[in-house]
Amino acid sequence: MSPTGFSEYPLDLVHRLIEPGPVIMVSTFDGERANLMTNGFNMPIAHGALIGLILGPWDHSYDALRATGECVIAIPSIDLAEQVTDVGNISGRDVDKWDKFGFTPAPAAVARAPLVQECFANIECTVADDRLVDDYNLWILRGERAWFDAGKRGAGEFHHRGDGTFSANADTLDLRHRMTKWQYLTRDQ
Amino acid sequence: MSPTGFSEYPLDLVHRLIEPGPVIMVSTFDGERANLMTNGFNMPIAHGALIGLILGPWDHSYDALRATGECVIAIPSIDLAEQVTDVGNISGRDVDKWDKFGFTPAPAAVARAPLVQECFANIECTVADDRLVDDYNLWILRGERAWFDAGKRGAGEFHHRGDGTFSANADTLDLRHRMTKWQYLTRDQ
Repeated sequence: MSPTGFSEYPLDLVHRLIEPGPVIMVSTFDGERANLMTNGFNMPIAHGALIGLILGPWDHSYDALRATGECVIAIPSIDLAEQVTDVGNISGRDVDKWDKFGFTPAPAAVARAPLVQECFANIECTVADDRLVDDYNLWILRGERAWFDAGKRGAGEFHHRGDGTFSANADTLDLRHRMTKWQYLTRDQ
Repeated sequence: MSPTGFSEYPLDLVHRLIEPGPVIMVSTFDGERANLMTNGFNMPIAHGALIGLILGPWDHSYDALRATGECVIAIPSIDLAEQVTDVGNISGRDVDKWDKFGFTPAPAAVARAPLVQECFANIECTVADDRLVDDYNLWILRGERAWFDAGKRGAGEFHHRGDGTFSANADTLDLRHRMTKWQYLTRDQ
């Protein structure tokens, strides 16, 4: 059964969600509580569902990710930018950020960490490689299931400019006709 | 001496160039020829000038990066999107992409790989860590010098949606007042 309101998103296209450079939220579950954080340091590791994520011990979610080997990456639309920023500026040690900022944990299909109901995309991830975690806080995650709700996409993801300012998306430039070498990437779902 | 037209950009702020999720160009020099490629898989590894980059053996630039341990990351504005896409769809094995697509190699300060004169930012990088290159084509690069030309920034970087379509930047949303925990990140240069 699909999580309420979401359609399954193909794992081989998950890079389309991450490559634009979105601000994301990361949900974890430590066995007792679900935590939620905000992140701007992420990228596709390969076409498909391998994702690189920087998440360090300064984040309350770090211990849960270490212990459980799983998390959910959720992508908020720019309509949520204020709440998402607030989530990134308070620690889950101190407060239940779901409740405080109006985010709803929703049951995932395979992860114990919850989806974020308000986000337009959710990717249930396991840790694929943690070799560079000690040195760089770099996790390589593998998307196991992905969910999409076109109705929540709105103006889509937004981009942190690294200083507390964020770029919204303007027009989309369609250059698929110039993708001669990489044409297979341009197919419709 | 600064490369012509560029001002030095602080290394401790280089994440501001990468965190938004730009399409970038990567310049290398193999001892004989400079090559240029296009890339969308990149992220900051830390605040400052550590950058993660996916670049695989299918790219002609891979051998030069392996051999020399250096490259230049250049960030084009959306005005260059067509040429940048074309650079990403032909191999440097076959053609001199600088000449063909109207990009100008400019001497860097410390790298032998050239800057891209037309781009609004250039980051001279060395390889900081290649432990995950064999398994994931993942390079950790360290910015050694960075250069910025505000006059070429225009509408700024653009974002690959993974399918040959690209997002332009619309308005910037200023939420610096909400960055209570991370206030140090919001300072002006």
